[in-house]
Amino acid sequence: MRLYTLASAPNAIRVLMLLREKPLDIEIVELDAEAREQKTPEFLAINPLGQVPALQLDDGICIAESLPISRYLDSISEGPSLFGATPESRAVIEMWERRAELGLFIPAVEYGHHTQPMMAEYFTQYVDWGNSLVGTVQTCLTLLDERLAETGWLGGTDFSIADITAYAGYRVAAFWSMPLQSEPNLSVWLHRMSERACASVVPL
Amino acid sequence: MRLYTLASAPNAIRVLMLLREKPLDIEIVELDAEAREQKTPEFLAINPLGQVPALQLDDGICIAESLPISRYLDSISEGPSLFGATPESRAVIEMWERRAELGLFIPAVEYGHHTQPMMAEYFTQYVDWGNSLVGTVQTCLTLLDERLAETGWLGGTDFSIADITAYAGYRVAAFWSMPLQSEPNLSVWLHRMSERACASVVPL
Repeated sequence: MRLYTLASAPNAIRVLMLLREKPLDIEIVELDAEAREQKTPEFLAINPLGQVPALQLDDGICIAESLPISRYLDSISEGPSLFGATPESRAVIEMWERRAELGLFIPAVEYGHHTQPMMAEYFTQYVDWGNSLVGTVQTCLTLLDERLAETGWLGGTDFSIADITAYAGYRVAAFWSMPLQSEPNLSVWLHRMSERACASVVPL
Repeated sequence: MRLYTLASAPNAIRVLMLLREKPLDIEIVELDAEAREQKTPEFLAINPLGQVPALQLDDGICIAESLPISRYLDSISEGPSLFGATPESRAVIEMWERRAELGLFIPAVEYGHHTQPMMAEYFTQYVDWGNSLVGTVQTCLTLLDERLAETGWLGGTDFSIADITAYAGYRVAAFWSMPLQSEPNLSVWLHRMSERACASVVPL
């Protein structure tokens, strides 16, 4: 089983975070971003979108997109699932994962793509729209803070994939210096997250 | 168990489509959009984001976000799962669901929000960015067309949640008259989709 990654790709980092929490014997193939290895015919046969992460199973099946890869790796690894143990807990965890993804992780990534001069060569930038994402992310941080006033982790009493997505998103936002207000419960959670093994693989 | 919906909300329509394929005895509560019932204190206690769909379980647990609601309803209903039967098929179906969601469904919804004069009172519109989503959606349609050249349904040999998301997204794009090119395999699939029970609940 091979996992293709790029050191700077936030979606690949999420999967590497999961593998720190639920170790598996997997070959990690680090592509060369400068050589545009993610756009070679060999890699496009694995993921036609030319994006990482991508997981190639031993029988040749290729899985792209960080969330299905994470769910698959979680399901074949030992220990409590990071996606929940019952239909109800799975639904609640996925709800918070989605909120963190759509309100924090994806907007933080898009903010960088659309507002940062260093990204102009890769993307047609819509700067005003990009800057509007600061408000989107702040709204999500407030929601997460309210959630954390009631629970230890975003998905409930246990650490879950929702925490991984939110932490990765927060680190991306911090990397791009998004002008965000701090939230008290979120700050406590960020400190607890920073002490986990998974946080150490985030290079941003 | 109560499912809160709004007749015109694309995300609620996706869940109603699933319920046509996997019927369950659920109370459907149609909120009044003109009365802004989704923003009342009573509904905000169910979903603080003031959005539908939202599912209230009999024990009081509330689940928002269309995908976890769909996965939950699928898991408690009879018949083959629309999310896959094995870890591998679940991953492949979720990969195609994500591609359809991030490349077609969400961009089609955002296109309407950002480019249509009738939506100007609800959203700060970034028209240039909104128009750029035509290219995003066309790229996704081409990808889905290539997939459908090899498989009967987007997730593989069986109809799945990936087809529901893609069909709902396509109908939203058509509703907003996005200027898209037709794709041959996708056209065949659209015809087959239009004959299914789930297609009949799409009002767009």
